[in-house]
Amino acid sequence: MEGVDYLSDERQKAQFDVEAMKVAWAGSLQALQLSNRMANLVANDPAFEKFTRPMMGRKELLKNTLRKAAHGWKLIVDLRLTEEEAKWLRLYIDEPAYTDLHWGMFIPAIEGQGTEEQKKKWLPLAQKMQIIGCYAQTELGHGSNVQGLETTATFDPQTDEFVIHSPTLTSSKWWPGGLGKVSTHAVVYARLIVGGEFHGVHGFIVQLRSLDDHSPLAGITVGDIGLKFGNGAYNTMDNGVLRFDHVRIPRNQMLMRVTQVTKEGKIMQSNVPRQLIYGTMVYVRQTIVADASKALSRAVCIATRYSAVRRQFGSRDGGPETQVIDYKTQQSRLFPLLASAYAFRFVGEWLKWLYMDVKERLAANDFSTLPEAHACTAGLKSITTTATADGIEECRKLCGGHGYLVSSGLPELFAVYIPACTYEGDNVVLLLQVARFLVKTVSELGYKKPVGTTAYMGRVASLMQNNCAVQTAEGWLNPGAIVEAFEARAARMAVRCGRQLAEFENPEEGFAELSADLVEAAVAHCQLIVVSKFIEKLQQDIPGKGVKQTLEMLCYVYALFLLHKHQGDFLATGYLTPKQASLANDQLRTLYSKVRPNAIALVDSFNYTDHYLGSILGRYDGNVYPKLYEAAWKDPLNDSDVVDGFHEYVQPILKQKLRTAKL
Amino acid sequence: MEGVDYLSDERQKAQFDVEAMKVAWAGSLQALQLSNRMANLVANDPAFEKFTRPMMGRKELLKNTLRKAAHGWKLIVDLRLTEEEAKWLRLYIDEPAYTDLHWGMFIPAIEGQGTEEQKKKWLPLAQKMQIIGCYAQTELGHGSNVQGLETTATFDPQTDEFVIHSPTLTSSKWWPGGLGKVSTHAVVYARLIVGGEFHGVHGFIVQLRSLDDHSPLAGITVGDIGLKFGNGAYNTMDNGVLRFDHVRIPRNQMLMRVTQVTKEGKIMQSNVPRQLIYGTMVYVRQTIVADASKALSRAVCIATRYSAVRRQFGSRDGGPETQVIDYKTQQSRLFPLLASAYAFRFVGEWLKWLYMDVKERLAANDFSTLPEAHACTAGLKSITTTATADGIEECRKLCGGHGYLVSSGLPELFAVYIPACTYEGDNVVLLLQVARFLVKTVSELGYKKPVGTTAYMGRVASLMQNNCAVQTAEGWLNPGAIVEAFEARAARMAVRCGRQLAEFENPEEGFAELSADLVEAAVAHCQLIVVSKFIEKLQQDIPGKGVKQTLEMLCYVYALFLLHKHQGDFLATGYLTPKQASLANDQLRTLYSKVRPNAIALVDSFNYTDHYLGSILGRYDGNVYPKLYEAAWKDPLNDSDVVDGFHEYVQPILKQKLRTAKL
Repeated sequence: MEGVDYLSDERQKAQFDVEAMKVAWAGSLQALQLSNRMANLVANDPAFEKFTRPMMGRKELLKNTLRKAAHGWKLIVDLRLTEEEAKWLRLYIDEPAYTDLHWGMFIPAIEGQGTEEQKKKWLPLAQKMQIIGCYAQTELGHGSNVQGLETTATFDPQTDEFVIHSPTLTSSKWWPGGLGKVSTHAVVYARLIVGGEFHGVHGFIVQLRSLDDHSPLAGITVGDIGLKFGNGAYNTMDNGVLRFDHVRIPRNQMLMRVTQVTKEGKIMQSNVPRQLIYGTMVYVRQTIVADASKALSRAVCIATRYSAVRRQFGSRDGGPETQVIDYKTQQSRLFPLLASAYAFRFVGEWLKWLYMDVKERLAANDFSTLPEAHACTAGLKSITTTATADGIEECRKLCGGHGYLVSSGLPELFAVYIPACTYEGDNVVLLLQVARFLVKTVSELGYKKPVGTTAYMGRVASLMQNNCAVQTAEGWLNPGAIVEAFEARAARMAVRCGRQLAEFENPEEGFAELSADLVEAAVAHCQLIVVSKFIEKLQQDIPGKGVKQTLEMLCYVYALFLLHKHQGDFLATGYLTPKQASLANDQLRTLYSKVRPNAIALVDSFNYTDHYLGSILGRYDGNVYPKLYEAAWKDPLNDSDVVDGFHEYVQPILKQKLRTAKL
Repeated sequence: MEGVDYLSDERQKAQFDVEAMKVAWAGSLQALQLSNRMANLVANDPAFEKFTRPMMGRKELLKNTLRKAAHGWKLIVDLRLTEEEAKWLRLYIDEPAYTDLHWGMFIPAIEGQGTEEQKKKWLPLAQKMQIIGCYAQTELGHGSNVQGLETTATFDPQTDEFVIHSPTLTSSKWWPGGLGKVSTHAVVYARLIVGGEFHGVHGFIVQLRSLDDHSPLAGITVGDIGLKFGNGAYNTMDNGVLRFDHVRIPRNQMLMRVTQVTKEGKIMQSNVPRQLIYGTMVYVRQTIVADASKALSRAVCIATRYSAVRRQFGSRDGGPETQVIDYKTQQSRLFPLLASAYAFRFVGEWLKWLYMDVKERLAANDFSTLPEAHACTAGLKSITTTATADGIEECRKLCGGHGYLVSSGLPELFAVYIPACTYEGDNVVLLLQVARFLVKTVSELGYKKPVGTTAYMGRVASLMQNNCAVQTAEGWLNPGAIVEAFEARAARMAVRCGRQLAEFENPEEGFAELSADLVEAAVAHCQLIVVSKFIEKLQQDIPGKGVKQTLEMLCYVYALFLLHKHQGDFLATGYLTPKQASLANDQLRTLYSKVRPNAIALVDSFNYTDHYLGSILGRYDGNVYPKLYEAAWKDPLNDSDVVDGFHEYVQPILKQKLRTAKL
């Protein structure tokens, strides 16, 4: 029945103030209100309907995206939305589009790498969308290794131009979003060649298409790279391929904030610190961590609500069966993900602070915290996106068979999310960077004080020596005991790696040989960061009845779940005894029972509209089965009782006339 | 260039006879030849082309599947293929279709549950495909819990008929493949009601559609349930929804081999053992394990070949970059999956033997091994399908960004495979069944000798007492040491669960409370089975130069990878010391280096055609980039330079005329 809340019993079980939790999740009342306003603006506008999206063919799909993007831009202009509001609006439209790259990569690239003059010329055009741009870095043969890019930009002093060229097939630009069918311009990364010499990889503003009729300019071959994973999903994006056949651009279209090429072909370095690029990386990765908490919380919201709706087994005397959320097997898979969503939310919030801090220091020419901040964001990007991708799929499985239906929302969420594990640094490559930094930190302990998230390494002696003192299951409900356990594990693993590396004559060979173990040490370090930032958050004042206590419970779930999952590390390093690990697991079971009555309210606190969730299983009102049934009939196959192809391909079989049939 | 083998260097590195390995993988020379013949029959027939499949809309997609199914059936009839050949043909067509259910579920249900009379009537019709059937068990509200099904079959003695009815929305049949648009008949599972009393759930043959014009019969509502995960993938299947409004069928359409209803409404039990149903389950799950090794080996083949083609970083003096397969991080993720594919292949082969053994015993009324065989197949289905689903996604990630393209083949492989984790028993529910059996076995040790795969429990005293004796990394290259480690871990975890359960007054409550730990104990037991069956396989004669040695290497990789991954279990149970676990990990690294030169040949040994692989990244000749580039241009978006929707939705933005545009 419409209008009935089938989950109201569940909502009444909550032991905390949901409205206050919404504020805690959003970061502030103001942030909640802003986000809420934008969410409803989208949800109530039929132009942003998304149910039919997965059924569309590619052309129709992209056209539909172009329509939504135009409508969204119109709203932004008409309602004079702030930049912050526009960001939330685009988020809630929930459809990857060329605008993501235009606003998120093209404009920031010019802002970050352009000279004042270049900014003055290009930014107003871009900000009014008189030109549309993308970010053309990745090539068919080169993703992770930027220094290996093959596209060339050769300076021609005769004409004061750069000649942009794709010398090989593998040098074709490949993957940039918005490139395939929409962008008029691109920031193209290419090997700068002046006077026959290579001078590093730099960005160049290149016009790709006519501003009159949108046709590709001379020397430009551009198109879409084809279908990607999933129904709808990222197929709303025109990821593109691009080749240059000696395309000429004026010299002043090389982004010259850091490196300049003069008319005479002289290379000059400005006094702008090259480290600026790391500041940008910290920024981008911080947004990726924030996105991880959004994606994981959506999946968890769907799986939690449907786990309360769905019943299976355990009927007594013909009464209703047991809600699947009451099974410990379900809880032990679902609640750690719920806790992870909160953990990632708070570490994302902290990363936002870290970025501001880094920016201020850079402005003051203080680069001291940069390597640590860089390693920390690389690692957090890696572990949060990996956990989120796996977590979305786990949530799908937790919904049983129905999670496999596109109408559950989970297949699209998975397919659209997983690129986050690869873009902006492959997750394993990033962990190796973290490991490199950790090993260096350990090796320098004698004379250099570790800072920031590696500060605990300064206490390495005691962390190596003192073992865990917990003696009861309750003993684990102690932030100090938990942080120390994660510190000891991370420190001991890093030190062990350092020792093993020292046995190799060639350090690089050692690093390569031990890389799988180094990755494990890096994960241990990054998990420590998430756990300690969650605990630090709880040391702040958090208003609202029961809110702080509930978050404490989730923090323990997150930490003890990790401890159980990685108990091999804790035992192998000798910090825990098997008995202590087992007590942690006992406490975890108890915690699950405490989370249970709060589960629905905890996912309500994300404050997602049914439009944004895009899931019949995750409907706020829990009215799942009638809506699933209703939705099925909208499949094009149900347009007619007798299916297209029956007469040609099934009837002849049934009538035993296949021999003479025309197949 | 066409005709060049870019991987020939890799192929020359192999240290074993590839043709002999193909035979070992296939099971016999005859099996290899048969499978090879069918694979090429499909690969060389343009009717089975599958490149365009992911781009099709749903209607076109299903029509295309109907065409392929008809073409396949025509080949089977025309070429007089044996049942075995037909199975391989359908496998290599590689497209889920209604025929899977007709041959794999509908016919076997009648064979297994029908009386001689019923078989005589229905089987010839089905075998000639004069009728097409499906298997309608799952309902909208009931998957795992068959006893909770709501559809009713009420006996009406007046007319000697059953009245099939869907009393609630949640009783709608939901999911059965082939039901939505094709099947003319179904075996419908329903609650038998005679004289107002419930007599269990039974199967009934129900005609759904007219054999003349295919329209649904009176009282029948039937349709497709809508889009599922992925492009193409399982959307070629018409999974259906079905409702009955008091549909009448003659009494003799209840499948009555075990339970009969007489004309007078008397319920009779035949002397056919009810345990027969477990025999069928053993059969079905054995095929699922065999399918797991196929799906995983396909993914591994793609990722291994592309890892040899792809180069990234590490260029020296401008020479070629390092092949990614040479990185230890890549090896440590890829090679365990390669080893798992072989492990699952051999445990699947053993399960085939187990099924024959069970069948013979059933025929002789010997039910003694049935519970053990049932638990063992349930557990193996669970762990192999979970590892395969995760493994396919891991292989996709191992291909970097390009794995996200549908043309890599991996997105479709993942989407089409994952239902295996849910159907025929949810993987976690199955592990709980295994755990229940293990706990029972432990509790009965005093007076009942454990059999089959639980025989090791008979040595529980020594397994609890003796700890591992390995003292060097080489010490781990010892089948005895490995099996004992896995036995000790599994036995100790089961015993610990038993002890913890004993602390509960109510055993069922204890089982529920500890279920997450019970699942872990069940996994330990099942991994032991896979490891020991791999080792047993190696005790047989395996001909061919280097074949046995190479398989031994893979067996060690599989076992030591599991040992490292689950070192928490081995350490927590006290069987291993941290030092011994670390030695195992050292040995694992050494093994990866030994697998490396054999990697390409090991995936060539699966003998898959490029058609079956369906992956540009996994091409036999390694000619990846030109083919990726070529394929991109076939996307419909590249039909024109200026994309559909540009004039309506992009031009007005660029020209700053959005206010007056019609969106």
